[in-house]
Amino acid sequence: MSVTVLRLGHRLVRDDRTTTHVALVARAFGCKKIFMTEVEDSIIRRIGRVCDDWGGSSEFDIEVIQDWKSVIKAWKKNNGIIVHLTMYGLNIEKMSLYFKEEKNILIVIGASKVPKELYSMADMNIAVGNQPHSEIAALAIFLDRLFRGKELVYSFQNANMTIVPSSHGKRVIIRKLKKSSLAGCK
Amino acid sequence: MSVTVLRLGHRLVRDDRTTTHVALVARAFGCKKIFMTEVEDSIIRRIGRVCDDWGGSSEFDIEVIQDWKSVIKAWKKNNGIIVHLTMYGLNIEKMSLYFKEEKNILIVIGASKVPKELYSMADMNIAVGNQPHSEIAALAIFLDRLFRGKELVYSFQNANMTIVPSSHGKRVIIRKLKKSSLAGCK
Repeated sequence: MSVTVLRLGHRLVRDDRTTTHVALVARAFGCKKIFMTEVEDSIIRRIGRVCDDWGGSSEFDIEVIQDWKSVIKAWKKNNGIIVHLTMYGLNIEKMSLYFKEEKNILIVIGASKVPKELYSMADMNIAVGNQPHSEIAALAIFLDRLFRGKELVYSFQNANMTIVPSSHGKRVIIRKLKKSSLAGCK
Repeated sequence: MSVTVLRLGHRLVRDDRTTTHVALVARAFGCKKIFMTEVEDSIIRRIGRVCDDWGGSSEFDIEVIQDWKSVIKAWKKNNGIIVHLTMYGLNIEKMSLYFKEEKNILIVIGASKVPKELYSMADMNIAVGNQPHSEIAALAIFLDRLFRGKELVYSFQNANMTIVPSSHGKRVIIRKLKKSSLAGCK
């Protein structure tokens, strides 16, 4: 199983930060790829820098698309599952998340109101609670439950920086120095 | 136990959307209050409208503060616990979250880099994974694990609109019309 995110409805400038958060959550929570529409190059560069620094440049991909419907149709044609996260859907708390291992999942999230037809195109419309909040939070919760927390301890390949978890302070191993160094509390 | 959020380091305009997401997640995921610094009035009005429409106007509070240190000191003086969510902290996946019922929790999250002294002032520095992603996602995951999903099925008081979870479409009960009405797929 691999999981990909399709982010719809990015509004230039206004959604700059939230779209960046969506992409970072997708990477950090175990997705292999994110499709995005009309995003600024600066966002893509920012995510690229995170992959360079913290690893995953060969494990996480960004693709800018023009036509979201063709992405969904192609996904379904390849026997994948479309999961739309929406506050109007069935509450995740009352569902058991089970997907066959051979199925690839495309999670669709909108920045604002999404096209009506998405509700019927999706195989599942799932609500991370039936209250308005955040597509970033919804994506994170869905992935956390799907992967049962394992995504939070995953080690990315080719990381130049790695955190040493600390009860009080910041400790980072920086590989670029060619030997392990503890930067200590900055 | 009650849970409150302290959001630090809001940058005007730039963090407008993410700060709104943080406040909406705090409300939707069971917090009683959020302290924020220097936010635009438009954000506060937006959250207020959500409480008016979806309930919780008497259950969720926003307070704009000037001095975050005095908030933390007062919290500790009242025997509360300070939990700072940071990628540098101890990984939540390797911790058991247990808090005494009589303890009130203040969750501190930053919009960007937080002051160094926060790491020592906090009782716990917890990482929702040791990767860069989103304080919105971190807050949601922490609350979801703390409340074990119960927050996602909570019904707010005095809601004018309530969602009827639906597998395909949008169904909303609007109380303002004085009788239940199913608005159907908009």
